[in-house]
Amino acid sequence: MAQATSQRSKEYAIEEFIVRSEPYYRVVGDELELFTAAYNQHIPVLLKGPTGCGKTRFVEYMAWKLGRPMTVVKGGKGKKKDEDDEVRVPLVTIACHEDLTASDLVGRYLLDANGTRWIDGPMTRAVKAGAILYLDEVVEARKDTTVLIHPLTDHRRILPVEKLGTVIEADDRFLLCISYNPGYQSALKDLKHSTRQRFISIEFYYPPRDIEAEIIARESGCSAETADSLAKLGEKIRNLEDHGLQEGASTRLLIYAARLISEGIEPRRACQVAIVWTLTDEVELQRSLEEVVSSIFE
Amino acid sequence: MAQATSQRSKEYAIEEFIVRSEPYYRVVGDELELFTAAYNQHIPVLLKGPTGCGKTRFVEYMAWKLGRPMTVVKGGKGKKKDEDDEVRVPLVTIACHEDLTASDLVGRYLLDANGTRWIDGPMTRAVKAGAILYLDEVVEARKDTTVLIHPLTDHRRILPVEKLGTVIEADDRFLLCISYNPGYQSALKDLKHSTRQRFISIEFYYPPRDIEAEIIARESGCSAETADSLAKLGEKIRNLEDHGLQEGASTRLLIYAARLISEGIEPRRACQVAIVWTLTDEVELQRSLEEVVSSIFE
Amino acid sequence: MAQATSQRSKEYAIEEFIVRSEPYYRVVGDELELFTAAYNQHIPVLLKGPTGCGKTRFVEYMAWKLGRPMTVVKGGKGKKKDEDDEVRVPLVTIACHEDLTASDLVGRYLLDANGTRWIDGPMTRAVKAGAILYLDEVVEARKDTTVLIHPLTDHRRILPVEKLGTVIEADDRFLLCISYNPGYQSALKDLKHSTRQRFISIEFYYPPRDIEAEIIARESGCSAETADSLAKLGEKIRNLEDHGLQEGASTRLLIYAARLISEGIEPRRACQVAIVWTLTDEVELQRSLEEVVSSIFE
Amino acid sequence: MAQATSQRSKEYAIEEFIVRSEPYYRVVGDELELFTAAYNQHIPVLLKGPTGCGKTRFVEYMAWKLGRPMTVVKGGKGKKKDEDDEVRVPLVTIACHEDLTASDLVGRYLLDANGTRWIDGPMTRAVKAGAILYLDEVVEARKDTTVLIHPLTDHRRILPVEKLGTVIEADDRFLLCISYNPGYQSALKDLKHSTRQRFISIEFYYPPRDIEAEIIARESGCSAETADSLAKLGEKIRNLEDHGLQEGASTRLLIYAARLISEGIEPRRACQVAIVWTLTDEVELQRSLEEVVSSIFE
Amino acid sequence: MAQATSQRSKEYAIEEFIVRSEPYYRVVGDELELFTAAYNQHIPVLLKGPTGCGKTRFVEYMAWKLGRPMTVVKGGKGKKKDEDDEVRVPLVTIACHEDLTASDLVGRYLLDANGTRWIDGPMTRAVKAGAILYLDEVVEARKDTTVLIHPLTDHRRILPVEKLGTVIEADDRFLLCISYNPGYQSALKDLKHSTRQRFISIEFYYPPRDIEAEIIARESGCSAETADSLAKLGEKIRNLEDHGLQEGASTRLLIYAARLISEGIEPRRACQVAIVWTLTDEVELQRSLEEVVSSIFE
Amino acid sequence: MAQATSQRSKEYAIEEFIVRSEPYYRVVGDELELFTAAYNQHIPVLLKGPTGCGKTRFVEYMAWKLGRPMTVVKGGKGKKKDEDDEVRVPLVTIACHEDLTASDLVGRYLLDANGTRWIDGPMTRAVKAGAILYLDEVVEARKDTTVLIHPLTDHRRILPVEKLGTVIEADDRFLLCISYNPGYQSALKDLKHSTRQRFISIEFYYPPRDIEAEIIARESGCSAETADSLAKLGEKIRNLEDHGLQEGASTRLLIYAARLISEGIEPRRACQVAIVWTLTDEVELQRSLEEVVSSIFE
Repeated sequence: MAQATSQRSKEYAIEEFIVRSEPYYRVVGDELELFTAAYNQHIPVLLKGPTGCGKTRFVEYMAWKLGRPMTVVKGGKGKKKDEDDEVRVPLVTIACHEDLTASDLVGRYLLDANGTRWIDGPMTRAVKAGAILYLDEVVEARKDTTVLIHPLTDHRRILPVEKLGTVIEADDRFLLCISYNPGYQSALKDLKHSTRQRFISIEFYYPPRDIEAEIIARESGCSAETADSLAKLGEKIRNLEDHGLQEGASTRLLIYAARLISEGIEPRRACQVAIVWTLTDEVELQRSLEEVVSSIFE
Repeated sequence: MAQATSQRSKEYAIEEFIVRSEPYYRVVGDELELFTAAYNQHIPVLLKGPTGCGKTRFVEYMAWKLGRPMTVVKGGKGKKKDEDDEVRVPLVTIACHEDLTASDLVGRYLLDANGTRWIDGPMTRAVKAGAILYLDEVVEARKDTTVLIHPLTDHRRILPVEKLGTVIEADDRFLLCISYNPGYQSALKDLKHSTRQRFISIEFYYPPRDIEAEIIARESGCSAETADSLAKLGEKIRNLEDHGLQEGASTRLLIYAARLISEGIEPRRACQVAIVWTLTDEVELQRSLEEVVSSIFE
Repeated sequence: MAQATSQRSKEYAIEEFIVRSEPYYRVVGDELELFTAAYNQHIPVLLKGPTGCGKTRFVEYMAWKLGRPMTVVKGGKGKKKDEDDEVRVPLVTIACHEDLTASDLVGRYLLDANGTRWIDGPMTRAVKAGAILYLDEVVEARKDTTVLIHPLTDHRRILPVEKLGTVIEADDRFLLCISYNPGYQSALKDLKHSTRQRFISIEFYYPPRDIEAEIIARESGCSAETADSLAKLGEKIRNLEDHGLQEGASTRLLIYAARLISEGIEPRRACQVAIVWTLTDEVELQRSLEEVVSSIFE
Repeated sequence: MAQATSQRSKEYAIEEFIVRSEPYYRVVGDELELFTAAYNQHIPVLLKGPTGCGKTRFVEYMAWKLGRPMTVVKGGKGKKKDEDDEVRVPLVTIACHEDLTASDLVGRYLLDANGTRWIDGPMTRAVKAGAILYLDEVVEARKDTTVLIHPLTDHRRILPVEKLGTVIEADDRFLLCISYNPGYQSALKDLKHSTRQRFISIEFYYPPRDIEAEIIARESGCSAETADSLAKLGEKIRNLEDHGLQEGASTRLLIYAARLISEGIEPRRACQVAIVWTLTDEVELQRSLEEVVSSIFE
Repeated sequence: MAQATSQRSKEYAIEEFIVRSEPYYRVVGDELELFTAAYNQHIPVLLKGPTGCGKTRFVEYMAWKLGRPMTVVKGGKGKKKDEDDEVRVPLVTIACHEDLTASDLVGRYLLDANGTRWIDGPMTRAVKAGAILYLDEVVEARKDTTVLIHPLTDHRRILPVEKLGTVIEADDRFLLCISYNPGYQSALKDLKHSTRQRFISIEFYYPPRDIEAEIIARESGCSAETADSLAKLGEKIRNLEDHGLQEGASTRLLIYAARLISEGIEPRRACQVAIVWTLTDEVELQRSLEEVVSSIFE
Repeated sequence: MAQATSQRSKEYAIEEFIVRSEPYYRVVGDELELFTAAYNQHIPVLLKGPTGCGKTRFVEYMAWKLGRPMTVVKGGKGKKKDEDDEVRVPLVTIACHEDLTASDLVGRYLLDANGTRWIDGPMTRAVKAGAILYLDEVVEARKDTTVLIHPLTDHRRILPVEKLGTVIEADDRFLLCISYNPGYQSALKDLKHSTRQRFISIEFYYPPRDIEAEIIARESGCSAETADSLAKLGEKIRNLEDHGLQEGASTRLLIYAARLISEGIEPRRACQVAIVWTLTDEVELQRSLEEVVSSIFE
C-alpha cells in the first residue's frame, strides 16, 4: 500500500513554499526561453490552455529553474538556508474564484490583546518576498482582484494597500503569472483588454502523442504499451470534441486510468471510471466513448 | 416503543467521528475494488447517482473498511484508542450549499480573552487528521468551495489557508470524495471540467429488485413478502419517470413504508403517505401512483 | 372586555416552551395514528396544506399528546418538573424565510467579558432537548437551512456544527416536522427531491362543513346558527377559487368574522372586513364575494 | 413666523411615545367601531388605502382613544404617570422597507465594557409594553420581517427571539396593525395569503368633498371658500387618474396649497408648486392639471 | 497662480457647516418667496431641474438668507458665536447613492475603551441642530433612506432611531429639502408617490441668456463679450438636445470654458475640452457641436 | 540579468508617494498647457483614451512638473524635505472597481487597545495633503464612490466624512483627475451627466508612428529599425479594429515585443506571444494578425 510509509500533514508559511527538488516537467517547445526572457524583463506572463495540460506544473518547474546563488542572511527569522546555499524563488499560488476578496489577497486587520494587528495576505507576501505569484484561472476572479494587479504589472510595479494607507514597491525578483482557459471564455467572463494588454501570452495544448505516452508511463509506472494505448485514446477522444463533448480528456485523466490499471483494475473498466464517466453524464455520449475505448483495449 | 431505551444527545469533535461498527451496506458490483484502488493511488473519487440510492452509506462503509493497524500515541489529548488497537479512518461529511463559505470550511479567527484565536474548519481538520472528506451534493457549493479543493486534488495535495498565510500538506491517509446527482444537472449548476477532471467517477443506481427487497427487510424488520411487494412497487414507479414524475421512489421511501406497516398502518395507506404524497403534489399523478400501489397491495 | 383580566408579557427559554394544557384540536381522520407511528420510527414528517387549515395547531396537539412518564432529574438547572411527574415533549417552532441563516438556527459566537462565548441556536437546542422541531413554510428557507436538516433526517440523526467543529447526535425523542403549502409551489420555490424523499407526507385540507361549524362556534363563542352560516360561506367561497380567487377563505377568517359578530358588528359588515376585503383588492371580485355573503346573511 | 415660539429637539424611548392629546381625526364611517371590536378580540388589523388619505392619523387617534383607567406602578423606572391617572396605549410606528432586518426589529447584541449586552428592538419593546405596533407600508418589508409577525398574529401571540433563544408572550394590550396601498400592488410585491389571512381589513379612501373641505380649513387655517375650492380641485384631479395620472392629489397636498396661500402666495401659483409639479414631471399632464386649477381659481 | 495664497485643509463638525458670507446667487423668479413660505409652514421642499443649473447654490443661499437673530447660549461646547450675534441656519448636505445605508445617516455604535458608544449620523445631527437637511439626487437613494424621511415630513416631524430604541422630535427650525433631475427619471428609479406627496415642488431650468452671461462673467472673471458668446453657445447646444445629445451644457461647463480662456487657452480649444469632449464621446455628435462652437468663435 | 542589482521591496505612506525624478513622457500636443490651466483654476480633469496609450504616465509627469518652491516645515513627522528644497505634488492613484467601498476611500474605524481609532483612507489623505488624486477607470467604480467626488468637484471643494460627522475643506493644491476608456462605454457603465459635467475632458490616442517608434526605442533599448517596424505593426493592427479585433495593440505591447527581441527571442515569435496571442483567442483572427507580422518581419 502507498500509505505504508505514512507521511503526516505539514504546515508552511505561504512564502516559504519553495520548490526544492526538480519537478517532473517534459519540455515541449521554447516555453522555457520565453518565460525566462519575460522574467528577466519584468514582463508579466499569461498562460493559456485547456484543463489539465500542465500549466501549473510548468510554473512550478520555472520557480525551481529560476533559483540562483544569492547572499543569505544567516539566522534570519522565518528564513531557511537552502542545502547548497542557493535561494530558490518562492511560488505563491492562488486559485481565483468569485468570492475571493481583495482583503483575502492583500491582508486584513485582526484583533489582538493589544488591539488590531495587520496580517499580510498572500499577494502582499509574494510582492515583499520576491516570489512568482501565480493566479490560477484568473477570469474567475472578481473585479477588485483583477484591478489589484494593474499597478503591479506596469512600469510602477507597486501594490497599493489602501487599508494601511501605504504603497509597496515589489521586490526585484517578483513576477506575476496568470492562467486562463480560453475554452471557457464567454461574454460575461472574459479578461478585459485593459488587463490582457499587461501580459505576454504563451499558449499551451495537450502534448503530442509520443510525449504524452512518455508522461503517462513516468507518472503512473505503467507499461510502455499501456501508456501508448492511453495516449492514442486521449488523441481520439479529443477529436470527438466537435461531436458534443464539452472538453477532451486531460493528460491527468489518462494517468488516472493508468494508475487504476497498475492497481489491477481491468483496462476497459479503468477507462470507464477514470475517463468515460468523468467526461460526461449523457448516456449516448458515454456509449460513443466506450466504443473508442473498446477499439483500443480489445 | 423505540424510545424505551432512551438515548441522550452526544457531541463529538468532527474529526473524531469514526465509524466504529460495521455499517449495513449491501455490495452490488465492484465498487469496493474501485474505491480501494483510488484510495491507494491518492485519486479523488466522484460518486454519481439519484437521491437515496445509498451513496452516503457506501462512503461510511468504506471509511470503516479502510481502517488498518497503526501505532497509536498513548494518552494523546483528543485521541482515543480503539478497542482492537486499530485506528479507523475518520469520516468528515459536509453537505454543500450556496451559503457555505470558504471560512466555514477552512477556519476562522475568533475573539478570545487574549485577542483573536484561530479555529480550524472541518476541511482543515480532515486534511490534518487524514480523514475521508465527503462533500455531499458538491454542485450546490459556491465557487470558492469548489476551487478550494483544486490544490487538494492534484499532485500537490495541499490546502492553502490564505487567512493564516500558510499552506498545509495533506496527511498521507487523506482522500477527497464528492457526490453528485446527474438528474439535477443544469446549465447553471454543472461541475466545471477543470473540477471534474480531477476525479474518477463511480456511477450508482437503485439496487436490482431482489437486492432491494433484502435491504428493505433488513432495515425495517418487515416480512419478506412485504419487502418483495415494496421492491416491486419501487421498480414500477421508477418506470413511470418518463410520465411526468420528476424522480423515482428512493430505497429510503420504500423502507419508510415498510416501517409504517410494521407500526400497524394499513399497507396502502402507508404507501400513500410514505411514497405517493411525498413524490408529487399533482392530483393526476397521485392517482396514477395509487393505481400502481393498488395493483400490488390489493 | 377580553383585556379585563390583563395578562403581562412573559419570556421563556425556547426549549422550555412546552404545551402544558390540551390544545383544542378537532381530529378529522387518522392523522394521529400516522404521526405517532412516524414518531416511534424516527421518520420525519411533512405536513402539506393551505393557509390557516390547522397544521400549526395539529403539531401543538401532537407535542402535548406525545408527553409520557419519564424519570426526571430533580433540581436540574433549567428543567422543570411537570405537575403529574410527566415530561412533555418541548415544541420548537421556526417560521422559515429567505433571510434566516444557518447561524440563526445552529448558533453563534458572542463576545463576552472573557472573549467569545458560544450560544446554541434553536435547532441545536431542539436536537439536544429531544424536542419536536417544527419548520413552518420550509420552502421559504434558504438552501443552507434546507441542507442543514439532511443529516438529521437519515439514519445518522446528527447535526454537524461546523463553527464549533463538532457533530451532535440527536436525543432519542427528537423529531423533525416541516410544513409546506403546495398552492404556492413554483419552479423557483419547490422542495428538492433530495430533501422531500426524507419525509413521509400527510395532506391537510379545510375540515368538512359540519366539523368547521363546530370549530367556529368553539373558537368564537358565537351561536350555532351563525357558525353554520359561516361554514357554508367558507365552502361556497372555496368553490370560487377557479374564478380568479388566489386562495379560499381559511377557517381562521371565518372565526374572525364570528368574533366581530359577537362584538356587535352587523354580520354582512363583519364578513366584508374579515373575509371579502382580506381575500382580494379587486373590485369585481369583491362584488362577487359580497353577493355570496348576501345570499347567506340576508 | 411659526418659529417664533421655537421648540427644541426632544428624544423619547420608543415605547414611551404615547399620544397624549386628542389628535385631530375626522371620523367618516364605522371605522372606530370596527377597530375597537378587533382590539377587544385580539384580531390584527390591516388598513388599505391610497397615499395621504389619513391612515397614520387614524391609528394615532385609536391609540389615544383606547387609553383607559389602570393601576399604575408608582415611581417605576422608565414609566410615567399620566395627568389623569390613566395609562394611554403606547404607539410604536415602523416604516417598512427592503433593508430593515429582523435584528433591527427584534433586537441585537451590543458590545459593552463587560462584554455583549442585549438591546430590545422596537418590535420587542412593543410586544412587552402592550403597545399598538403599526407597520406602515408592510409590502415593502423583507420576507423575514413579514414572517416575524406570523406567531404574533395567531392564537399563540408570541415573538420568538432566536438570537436570545427565547420566546416572548405578548402583553394582553398588544395589537398589531399594518397598512398597505393596493394601488402599488404588483406581482412581485404583494402580501402573501399566509400573511393576509391573519388580519381583518378596513378600506380607506379620500374623504367626501364636504368633509375634506372641513379638514383643509382646520389643518391650514385658510378661509372656508379657499378650502371648498381646494376640495373641489382634489375631487376633479382624482377623476383624471385614468388619463395618465399615476395617483390623485392627497388631502395632504391640498392642505399644503392652502398653507402656501395663507403665507401670501397667489392661489394658482400655490396649486402649481404644491399640486401640479408634485404630481407629475410630464409637461402635457402638467398643462391639463393647470387647466383644472384655472377653471377653479380664475 | 491661484495657489499663491495657499489655503490648507480644514475640518468641521457637519452641523457647524454654516454659510457665513452671502453666496453668489442670481435670483430668477419667485423662488425666494416660495422657499420662505414653505420654511415658515414646515413644508418640505423638492427642487427639480437639470445638472448644474444652480439647485445646490440656491439651497446654500437660502440657508444664509434664513439666518435670523436668536439668543445664543454662551460658552456652549461645540457651539460658536457668530460675529454679529446671529445664528445662521446650518446646512447639512448629503449626496444620495445606492450604498448609503440608514446607519450612515442616522448613526451607529462604535467600540470604545469602555464598550460601545453611539455616534449620531448627519441626519440625526441635522434634526437636532435645526438645520436645513439637503438630500441631493434623492432618487439615487436606497429604499431605507427614502422611507427614513417619511415621519420627518408629515405632521409628526420625528426621526425614529431604531438602533437606540428612541424617537427624536425635530427642532423647530429643521427643514428637509431634496433635489431630483426629472431627465433621469426611469421606471426603476422614480420617486414613489407616497414620498413625492410629502413635498411642494419648485422647478428649475438653466437661466435665460442675459442672466447666464452675467453669471459666467461674475464666476470666471472673463470679458462681457466672451460671457455673451458662451451664453449664446449654451442656448444653442441645449436646442440640440433632441438631436442625440443626452443632456445640454450646464452653466458650470460654460464657466469652465470661460476660466480656461482667462488662463490663455484659445477660445475654440477651450470650448472643445470644457464642453464638446465633456458632453459626448461620439465623433459625429462632437463634429456637430464643434460647428456650433465655430459659428460663434470664428 | 536585470536582477543583478537586486532591489528589495519598499513601503511608503500613500501620500508620500511623490514622483521625484522626471518620468519619461513624450509630449504630443498641448496637453501640458491644458492640464496646467485646469490645475490653476481648480477645474477637475477627465482623461479619455484607449488601454495603454499613456494616460497614467501623463498624470505622473504632471505631478512631477507641477512641483514648485514652498516653505517646508522642518523636522515635521512623516514629511520629508526634498533635495532641492522644493515640495513635489504627491500623487495618489486609485484603480476603481466594483468592490471598492466609500470606506476604503474615506477611512474607517479600527479597534485599538483603547477602543476604536479612525484611519484616514487614501482619498481623505489626498484631500488633506493637497495631492493630485487620480481615479483610474472611474466608470468601474460603484455609485457611492462616484457620488463622493461631487462635493470635491464643484465650488465647495469639500469631502463630507459621514462616519466622523465632519466635513473637510480640500487643501488649495488638491486636484481631482479621473480616466476613462470610451471604447468600453455601455448603457450600464457610463458616466452620468451629473458627474461628467464637473470636468474638462482631454482626449488621448496612440501617438503618431514616428513618435511611437521613439518611445519604443527609448523604453526597450532596441534598435531604431526594430522600433520603426513595431510602430508600423501597431499602426496596421489598429486599422484591423473594424475586422473583429476588440481593441488595437497598445504601445505597451509593442514595447514588450521589443524587449523580448532584446532578450534574443526571434522577432516573429516575440510578436506572436507579446501581441497576437495577447490580443485574441480566436484562431482566424490570430492568423490575420500573423500575416500582418510576417509582412513586416519577413
